[in-house]
Amino acid sequence: MLDFEYHAPTHVVFGKNAVEKVGTLVKEQGCKKVLIHYGGGSAKRSGLLDRVAQSLEAAGVAYIQLGGVVPNPRLGLVKEGIALCRKEGVDFILAVGGGSVIDSSKAIGYGLTNEGDVWDYYAKKKVPTACAPVGAVLTIAAAGSEMSNSSVITNEDGWLKRGLSSEYSRCKFAIMDPTLTYTLPAYQTASGAADIMMHTMERYFTAVDVPMNLTDNLAEGLLRSVMKDVTAALRNPEDYEARAGLMWASSLSHNGLTGCGTDGGDWASHQLEHELGGKYDVAHGAGLCAVWSSWARTVMPANPARFAKFAVNVMGVEPGADDMETANRGIDAMEAFFQSIGMPTRINQMGITLSEEDMRELAHKCSFMNTRKIGKFVPLDREAIYEVYKLASK
Amino acid sequence: MLDFEYHAPTHVVFGKNAVEKVGTLVKEQGCKKVLIHYGGGSAKRSGLLDRVAQSLEAAGVAYIQLGGVVPNPRLGLVKEGIALCRKEGVDFILAVGGGSVIDSSKAIGYGLTNEGDVWDYYAKKKVPTACAPVGAVLTIAAAGSEMSNSSVITNEDGWLKRGLSSEYSRCKFAIMDPTLTYTLPAYQTASGAADIMMHTMERYFTAVDVPMNLTDNLAEGLLRSVMKDVTAALRNPEDYEARAGLMWASSLSHNGLTGCGTDGGDWASHQLEHELGGKYDVAHGAGLCAVWSSWARTVMPANPARFAKFAVNVMGVEPGADDMETANRGIDAMEAFFQSIGMPTRINQMGITLSEEDMRELAHKCSFMNTRKIGKFVPLDREAIYEVYKLASK
Repeated sequence: MLDFEYHAPTHVVFGKNAVEKVGTLVKEQGCKKVLIHYGGGSAKRSGLLDRVAQSLEAAGVAYIQLGGVVPNPRLGLVKEGIALCRKEGVDFILAVGGGSVIDSSKAIGYGLTNEGDVWDYYAKKKVPTACAPVGAVLTIAAAGSEMSNSSVITNEDGWLKRGLSSEYSRCKFAIMDPTLTYTLPAYQTASGAADIMMHTMERYFTAVDVPMNLTDNLAEGLLRSVMKDVTAALRNPEDYEARAGLMWASSLSHNGLTGCGTDGGDWASHQLEHELGGKYDVAHGAGLCAVWSSWARTVMPANPARFAKFAVNVMGVEPGADDMETANRGIDAMEAFFQSIGMPTRINQMGITLSEEDMRELAHKCSFMNTRKIGKFVPLDREAIYEVYKLASK
Repeated sequence: MLDFEYHAPTHVVFGKNAVEKVGTLVKEQGCKKVLIHYGGGSAKRSGLLDRVAQSLEAAGVAYIQLGGVVPNPRLGLVKEGIALCRKEGVDFILAVGGGSVIDSSKAIGYGLTNEGDVWDYYAKKKVPTACAPVGAVLTIAAAGSEMSNSSVITNEDGWLKRGLSSEYSRCKFAIMDPTLTYTLPAYQTASGAADIMMHTMERYFTAVDVPMNLTDNLAEGLLRSVMKDVTAALRNPEDYEARAGLMWASSLSHNGLTGCGTDGGDWASHQLEHELGGKYDVAHGAGLCAVWSSWARTVMPANPARFAKFAVNVMGVEPGADDMETANRGIDAMEAFFQSIGMPTRINQMGITLSEEDMRELAHKCSFMNTRKIGKFVPLDREAIYEVYKLASK
């Protein structure tokens, strides 16, 4: 195992009426004015925005609102939010939504506290030195942004999807009421669960020779739990225990816990998906499922024992004659599981037919115009990335 | 599952040369003067205190020192520490040691920031409203105080051992270098591992009808990991992976993670042990092992299914004809495990022979002079507590 730091200071308030505490939690932050940032109409229609506003009013906290965040959140709205916050003197951003809204809120927070064009920080031209404080009222169990240090924004100019991670952007608090996710459509529920799993799986497939036994046990236990809970939530969308399990797993899977002692994880599947998500606007979790098994079959031979451990301890498969056989059974089992929850395991199952030229372009962008390799388990260059896209399109 | 809050803001710096970062970490706290608080001579002899002092000096941080903390840390030294800190203008306490030193540091922190006699807060006569900031350089994997909200102090006047929990006392940072635990004697290593396990087991045996599946998976995975790691560390005290697993487990087992969605846990075994520890000064983990199986056999019939799940998923036993049989096999297996690492499973195995009168006195004190019941899985009154001490003395 490797040395690590772990710092997940977000104050989690979890349960059925947690939303009512938002006023108190914001007030504790000692801010002057809040931006309530949200997505489409569902937070409004469901009455959630009103509940949040009432709680803020009861606590005597001033606020303004900005909606319109879409999946794969856009730089345009982020810039609008920054300008609005500057004009209105906002010093706290309250995200009411899922990962896209929280990521957009973090981007606004970066924009408020760092000079110049906020995209420069996502494009890795500059390094941020602060982020205005962000809190979250979570409505989707998926991205884990409510406890993570990361955010991902899409620049409409070129449809580039880029991530920015820093400790400054950890949410001050996260309010998690699993009942808010009862109305999520099945596809979004499944896509969210896949996203949760992938945050731990990316960390699990580490290039470290001897990963930390404790971290492995926690990661494997979390993955088994998510598989059980998403299956139950799809059967009965109002299964509180299942929805709660998914919601808490979304946070634990991306706050660093399941990566302690690793090299930070592989993340090639995420990079492969970012290009798809940026260009074709697919659901993030679904996009991850569409590329994962192709990535896995490509890199597995570098360390079949690791994939065999995953196969037995997570997927519960019977060991084969050797690690390679066990590993392949595990990848097959994960594909079958993804399919069982309605997720794609090939890109064309999302209604996208990639031409040869498309695959070359995606690989070119994913390799940052042939200047980087992605992943650690096996670093993949532009040609190798292209091969994975090709395998995932068969 | 029940609603919960989770807030574990301690910044963990984990690894082989983490101690060198202590100066920087203390400086980030913006304090003026540090008390380095430590225990016996080992921190001095090993050169650890010198390394800490050098790092503080390099960062330009002023400090004074106070040693002498003993296991089951005493109120007397706490009061001495408070007076010293007041006189010297200390505003940050750096604990260099294990749980006893960290708990003593937290008690000094409470004393510096709350009026009157600090014992009143441990005796539950008053509620603290603050705690001076504490950081830790951990040298023993056991108590988990480096990430927990709790501390336990023994009052020499009556040898009362009492705990105080509040969010104010969470360490600002925890420096964890597993190599610092290489020289721990086998008995302390095993006792520490037992303490770690018990922090999760207390939470696992909840009175909640449907515990959180995810929390169960994490708890079970942590327990299996500790059992594996302590066995390896006893075989080879310089097994880095094993020592690292134990150290990280000590934090995760008591920072709240393994209790999310429960009622906070049972904690009767801890209360039973506190009386033994206060009066007979036994190693905390050993004392817990000496009472646990007697507690377990007493309460198990209230929910055999819970103990059966523990038996299968943690102890790996074959299920019996019914939950009761499986549960008993699990308790037997845990006793065998405790014995395998040199821990007692009866009070007399610690060289203590309790008379009838002793047991009555312990039960009287443990029930707060017959004014409270202990535990939640099955609340135990003075008579029931006496029966457990009796069973544990057979």
